[in-house]
Amino acid sequence: MLIHSMKANQLNSFLISALTEENPFITTAEVEVWLEQQNHAVQVGIEQIAFSEMTHWNFSQDQSRLQHQSGGFFSIEGIHVRTNWREVKEWEQPIINQPEIGYLGIITKEFNGILYFLLQAKIEPGNINYVQLSPTLQATRSNYSQVHGGKAPAYLEYFKDRKRAAILMDQLQSEQGARFLRKRNRNIIIQVTEAIEVQEAFIWLTLGQIKKLILKDNLVNMDTRTVISGIPFKSFEDIGLFSYNHNPVKMSMLISSVGKGISIYSFEELVAWLTALKCRYELIVTGIPLNQVKKWTITDWEIVEEEGRFFKVIAARVTISNREVSSWCQPLVKPAQDGLIAFVVKEIFGVLHFLVQAKLECGNFDILELAPTVQCLTGDYKRPEYEIPFLDLVLGASPESIRYDAMQSEEGGRFYQEQNRNRIVQVGAEFPIEVPENYTWMTLNQMNTFITFNNYLNIQARSLISAVNFL
Amino acid sequence: MLIHSMKANQLNSFLISALTEENPFITTAEVEVWLEQQNHAVQVGIEQIAFSEMTHWNFSQDQSRLQHQSGGFFSIEGIHVRTNWREVKEWEQPIINQPEIGYLGIITKEFNGILYFLLQAKIEPGNINYVQLSPTLQATRSNYSQVHGGKAPAYLEYFKDRKRAAILMDQLQSEQGARFLRKRNRNIIIQVTEAIEVQEAFIWLTLGQIKKLILKDNLVNMDTRTVISGIPFKSFEDIGLFSYNHNPVKMSMLISSVGKGISIYSFEELVAWLTALKCRYELIVTGIPLNQVKKWTITDWEIVEEEGRFFKVIAARVTISNREVSSWCQPLVKPAQDGLIAFVVKEIFGVLHFLVQAKLECGNFDILELAPTVQCLTGDYKRPEYEIPFLDLVLGASPESIRYDAMQSEEGGRFYQEQNRNRIVQVGAEFPIEVPENYTWMTLNQMNTFITFNNYLNIQARSLISAVNFL
Repeated sequence: MLIHSMKANQLNSFLISALTEENPFITTAEVEVWLEQQNHAVQVGIEQIAFSEMTHWNFSQDQSRLQHQSGGFFSIEGIHVRTNWREVKEWEQPIINQPEIGYLGIITKEFNGILYFLLQAKIEPGNINYVQLSPTLQATRSNYSQVHGGKAPAYLEYFKDRKRAAILMDQLQSEQGARFLRKRNRNIIIQVTEAIEVQEAFIWLTLGQIKKLILKDNLVNMDTRTVISGIPFKSFEDIGLFSYNHNPVKMSMLISSVGKGISIYSFEELVAWLTALKCRYELIVTGIPLNQVKKWTITDWEIVEEEGRFFKVIAARVTISNREVSSWCQPLVKPAQDGLIAFVVKEIFGVLHFLVQAKLECGNFDILELAPTVQCLTGDYKRPEYEIPFLDLVLGASPESIRYDAMQSEEGGRFYQEQNRNRIVQVGAEFPIEVPENYTWMTLNQMNTFITFNNYLNIQARSLISAVNFL
Repeated sequence: MLIHSMKANQLNSFLISALTEENPFITTAEVEVWLEQQNHAVQVGIEQIAFSEMTHWNFSQDQSRLQHQSGGFFSIEGIHVRTNWREVKEWEQPIINQPEIGYLGIITKEFNGILYFLLQAKIEPGNINYVQLSPTLQATRSNYSQVHGGKAPAYLEYFKDRKRAAILMDQLQSEQGARFLRKRNRNIIIQVTEAIEVQEAFIWLTLGQIKKLILKDNLVNMDTRTVISGIPFKSFEDIGLFSYNHNPVKMSMLISSVGKGISIYSFEELVAWLTALKCRYELIVTGIPLNQVKKWTITDWEIVEEEGRFFKVIAARVTISNREVSSWCQPLVKPAQDGLIAFVVKEIFGVLHFLVQAKLECGNFDILELAPTVQCLTGDYKRPEYEIPFLDLVLGASPESIRYDAMQSEEGGRFYQEQNRNRIVQVGAEFPIEVPENYTWMTLNQMNTFITFNNYLNIQARSLISAVNFL
């Protein structure tokens, strides 16, 4: 018997309170110092090793996949892709297959009328800053079901036992479609009322603080960013609580963009636009053995494309030393270069609109997802192999038109020092409203409505949206 | 360059006008007579033949599939299913694989301020009534791309040429998850303004007329029902235009159920409920050769389960004779018995709520879809093999509590004389609000919001919703 425990509109009033940056537990400046201390207190060693040196990981006998000996966690497999999207109609590549749905969960609690979010300073081997602010719980099913030994992740019981917490948000969201095969995570925010122990390396932060820290490079990890991107903006609009923002002159526009103001397209028009594109574009993905992926070679040390493009799969021995020493081996995906994701935004009818792209990626669950205006992660955007719309505009944007600009990491548990420039660029009246057919204009509220449903906004779009308060 | 051609709110005002049953072209009673005439004017012969006698269809050399020689249309394949849903954890079965997205399209046009829908009396071999009211266009990609010869379907050009019509609705919707492997159709309603020829066997009907005809057995085909189920109820609520309904005492309740009244659960709670279930239930479907499907046998004449349960695949020679004679062969799926689909509805907080089930079926695109309270299509509901919640209540409902009851056909192009009892039963205060965990209560508006997005409401739920005006 399921007892729905979430109270209607509870999310709204609490999250509004959370937008404050006043925090008696820890100020935003102190968080940065604290993160630095956490970083100093730990030694992280990443040693690239040969695949044959990995403990618990091996290629299957037929070389069809690189896998954990338990069959859990994830594996590296091969896929053949056929599509009628853009220039490249057919290719093969390695991909991460992780069919388990993991938890990305944040515990919240009210203190003196303000909602706080419990984040942790979490070490991940692939992070540029080894320690970044992560959700309370970040666990694959292999982790939390403990089938492979190990202790249960901290705070897991609050998410598993439905009577201990109210659910504020619970959504299925996609991961990187160029790297993961239809991977999804459960993005969940719960609220506890009972006393709760704050374990070491965990802190209570307001949403306002988290959003301020996203302005800095590589402090807030991808998992935290995707969870908070699902928080509806309409909550905030109701009482216009954007006033803490650093750029008050932009506020009226932002408020209008999340309100019930005029959007250039109705929601039904946006659904029709996407339906037509999903019917036009095909994506046929077939599993193939990893050692038969065309143009890719498995050496003793890496799985690499013939021209060194896109990414490599490497084997790593990770050693974490703080008070204890722990060490394990795992594959990591190492990108060929930094990437770029960017939204172009424009005021239309007095309302801020985002230029959204319907983008096909091989690991997508449903052919196309809604992506930022520019998304260059797999190829080199400094030497693009084919024309990328709006790339020059984003790269050449004047400082006054750049509303947000930071380097942000991808998930450090899978990706080795992968960081992408996150940028939001505002264009003026000279920028045309008519755009190529796989682009359209949406308000923040329209994007947020799509986020509520599975597999609409991709993780790059969500990463940018998580920063939006600070346009 | 895509020019969005749909006008915001155009759908609403026009569809409201369409709710009238006054039609100067043809009255509702005349439509029934006309359909009967169409049925008399045609001879439909369905002869069951051996698989080896089929022209253009054959088993692949390795007996892994039954296919059209062009590779188009559809094929019958085998699947292995593994799940943790309910009693049966693992099984194998034949399934229809039709990866192409087809059109289910209705042309509308305004005459004297009223919107009319262009439907056709279409012959389909599997229909109980051979001739049923079908959408203007009902075409697979194999049909409309004409790769296999044949003439283009009537009115196709209005859907393909985006400048000839405004789009009122354009959605991707699923088909039967127990029979089709992730099949979807494009449900589209367009509006033309130019003069348009009404070809033979086509008529202009109002939405009110179509909904009235759905009250009768087997007159409006499944494809028409799914398309009109996507029309938002909120349009109607705005001006309370339910007054043409036959049961005016129920009207206030129905209007409240589609309005912004209090629903028992917020939309966010419903999304959270479904997310938790999607994370709990697994569905792993693997393709296997058709001749290796356990418990199923391919004879010369049929593909049949060892106890004759569920359905058979048969080979049919279809002969249609009116002024011309046309004949072709194709496989058809023949169910073992009639099925039952039913919604239980209840007034909660003065608002009518529907008891919705999250149901796993092997061909589902995303594990679970929202289904009617009771859905018994694949097993025999008169001799159920395991307990089916609410079955007795629906079967034993008193006449006063039955708000809708009709036999409706599944799609006659694939299914041989498959019809299901469609029923809506209203329960009173004695019926508990707490329901098993994979059931929840939704208002019509909440269901309609889910319909807007891909693969939420299944085709059985949509079939029942298409009748709802007449509760």
